Amino acid sequence: MAEAGFAALWASLLPLGRDAATGGYRRFSWTPADAECRRWFTGRAAERGLAVTADRNGNLWAWLGTPAAGAVVTGSHLDSVPDGGAYDGPLGVVTAFAAIDLLRERGLAPVRPLAVAAFSEEEGSRFGVACLGSRLLAGAIEPERARGLRDAAGTTLAEAMAAAGRDPAAIGPDEALLAGIGAYVELHIEQGRALAGLGAAVGVASGIWPHGRWRLTFTGRPDHAGTTRLADRRDPMLPCATAVLAAREAAARHESVATVGKVIVTPGAVNAISSSVTAWLDARAPDEARLHAMVDEVAAAAGAAAAGHGVSLAASQESFTPAVEFDAGLRGRLAASLAARGIAAPVLPTGAGHDAGVLAAKVPAGMLFVRNPTGVSHSPAEHADAADCAAGVAALAAVLEDLACR
Amino acid sequence: MAEAGFAALWASLLPLGRDAATGGYRRFSWTPADAECRRWFTGRAAERGLAVTADRNGNLWAWLGTPAAGAVVTGSHLDSVPDGGAYDGPLGVVTAFAAIDLLRERGLAPVRPLAVAAFSEEEGSRFGVACLGSRLLAGAIEPERARGLRDAAGTTLAEAMAAAGRDPAAIGPDEALLAGIGAYVELHIEQGRALAGLGAAVGVASGIWPHGRWRLTFTGRPDHAGTTRLADRRDPMLPCATAVLAAREAAARHESVATVGKVIVTPGAVNAISSSVTAWLDARAPDEARLHAMVDEVAAAAGAAAAGHGVSLAASQESFTPAVEFDAGLRGRLAASLAARGIAAPVLPTGAGHDAGVLAAKVPAGMLFVRNPTGVSHSPAEHADAADCAAGVAALAAVLEDLACR
Repeated sequence: MAEAGFAALWASLLPLGRDAATGGYRRFSWTPADAECRRWFTGRAAERGLAVTADRNGNLWAWLGTPAAGAVVTGSHLDSVPDGGAYDGPLGVVTAFAAIDLLRERGLAPVRPLAVAAFSEEEGSRFGVACLGSRLLAGAIEPERARGLRDAAGTTLAEAMAAAGRDPAAIGPDEALLAGIGAYVELHIEQGRALAGLGAAVGVASGIWPHGRWRLTFTGRPDHAGTTRLADRRDPMLPCATAVLAAREAAARHESVATVGKVIVTPGAVNAISSSVTAWLDARAPDEARLHAMVDEVAAAAGAAAAGHGVSLAASQESFTPAVEFDAGLRGRLAASLAARGIAAPVLPTGAGHDAGVLAAKVPAGMLFVRNPTGVSHSPAEHADAADCAAGVAALAAVLEDLACR
Repeated sequence: MAEAGFAALWASLLPLGRDAATGGYRRFSWTPADAECRRWFTGRAAERGLAVTADRNGNLWAWLGTPAAGAVVTGSHLDSVPDGGAYDGPLGVVTAFAAIDLLRERGLAPVRPLAVAAFSEEEGSRFGVACLGSRLLAGAIEPERARGLRDAAGTTLAEAMAAAGRDPAAIGPDEALLAGIGAYVELHIEQGRALAGLGAAVGVASGIWPHGRWRLTFTGRPDHAGTTRLADRRDPMLPCATAVLAAREAAARHESVATVGKVIVTPGAVNAISSSVTAWLDARAPDEARLHAMVDEVAAAAGAAAAGHGVSLAASQESFTPAVEFDAGLRGRLAASLAARGIAAPVLPTGAGHDAGVLAAKVPAGMLFVRNPTGVSHSPAEHADAADCAAGVAALAAVLEDLACR
């Protein structure tokens, strides 16, 4: 019954915002695809008698019971990275509705307010700041800065929200809303293979690795690719290549991860030595000491290579998110709820940011993960087995039963 | 007198098509800036009693004497790369007029027809094919293909020529015109620092290095940058970085040049492992054996690195231009003419393509180079000293005296 309910919910969301060519999702905030997802959310909530409200930042809340102190909130987000998978975000929303259905099947009724939340722009795919909806709610980003964020076409968040019928002047922290939340539990597909390696369908998050983005701009001298002797070159592409390889080596040394996934070459002509090359370094580590050591090593290798080629290097930190350690009390409660239901759920950290990580600064927050057999995420190939999704629904129901129904 | 003449000619061309903000030139073919340059050419020719004709491909010819077999032609081009320098092209046209002035000052009159030529679209900046005017003349590109070439705005060459009052249906090879040319000598600013290193103001080209473009596409697997373990990654950025460094090393081993100046990363997100990275390799060598050895070594290093990262590599040749060896007889004549005037002119190869290289397939062709103290070209900073430009005028006059006046 619970599995069938989940499958129907899942199937109803699956076609929305999906690109026919790639099979990936393009659910970017405040676009028509996003509006479709929001209508889906509102419709599924209405079917269940939940009252939907949008907060001042456009995050959606489907309430069972009247919002009040000690509310239990679960959910995730519906937006996607470009050509993302079906699970990252939606799994947490769909399992939330399905878990409420399961509680009702069992005749259980919450004794405190329970809500399903869908946060806006978690991926930062349109406006560049991840967890934008939860950051605004928690006061982790200045509303003025957020309003001015631009998408690739130059549209600001303020303009996009206004076009979607929202009031951008109203965005910002909402202490009253936060004050009513007793616990936030987000279920998410794992974006690695730790659970697969452990043979477990679900897990509990211990925390989120500290992570950040650094921009490395190498500036050399544009020149003719055919006539400039090697000795006369100041080619910024070369130290950039060294930095890419150094990042991988440093990550291996520190048992961390580092990635260069964005590189912009100017002028970008086949027959011209570049004037400048900018590379973005995404780095994440189990602790801040290792993170900083790793980034320092990459910067040092990049700087040495740049100097060797007569190239200048400007390195700057674009963002930094400290380590998040989820609330120990809530984590213990999640583990106990699951154990009581006979669900084995290993505790594991993650390198990915989540709304739960942002909200953890303001309310007791925790996360459940569902096994990802390949570990692939942010890709149309992202997948979780149906049985594991059902295990996720059961785990979330067990947690909500404990937190909201007793 | 000759220096003053050169300076006045130079100064009259200098403002045309120059961008006020960058100080660089944007003389793209069949634009208003190009028309200004053509009017300048016609005016300077008329001042000297030269009869200007445009050939069917829009190349300009200023004739001293009636075109006939055994004509001596000098010149270059007036178009520029985006934000190019003042010298690349125009120096060959201005020194041609100045050399004719100098011959006249000396009371010398040609005994065979002499022409100054200005070829269209040498840089390929607007329609993407370098040496387009000389290629059409020499039958090195199909007229139908040329007519369909499009600029960045989608305008075809045919449309641009028609808008400029030319008949695009007429373009194509002109064997009669070529048959009349006994020698083509192009003076050009050096686009490297070989002459500077040798302490010589002018040089004679031995030939043009064989060169080509290769495309390397690395295809991996898109994944989450924060959660995918290093061991699980198939990141195409890493073998691409190895290829960039391998190209530099192979070029050094083979006393050649190799450049990666264009890289496209997909999807290009800071927090995503790339699905694919494409890099373009521009490679040029003193001979084809070394060129192919160098490219093979780069491809082997790229392939090995790709395999090591579970990434696939597709390498393809996008273009290839065989070595040009300038006519030995004409080269000997240039050297002898200069030596007779006491002008020391080292013989050197170049890695850059030129109209003289295209025409070399059809007529005896040769080149003179003028020292470039920094080697910088295709840049507003491109520069040659006035004394070296005067030495270029004297060298070209010596050559024209020998070829046309005896």
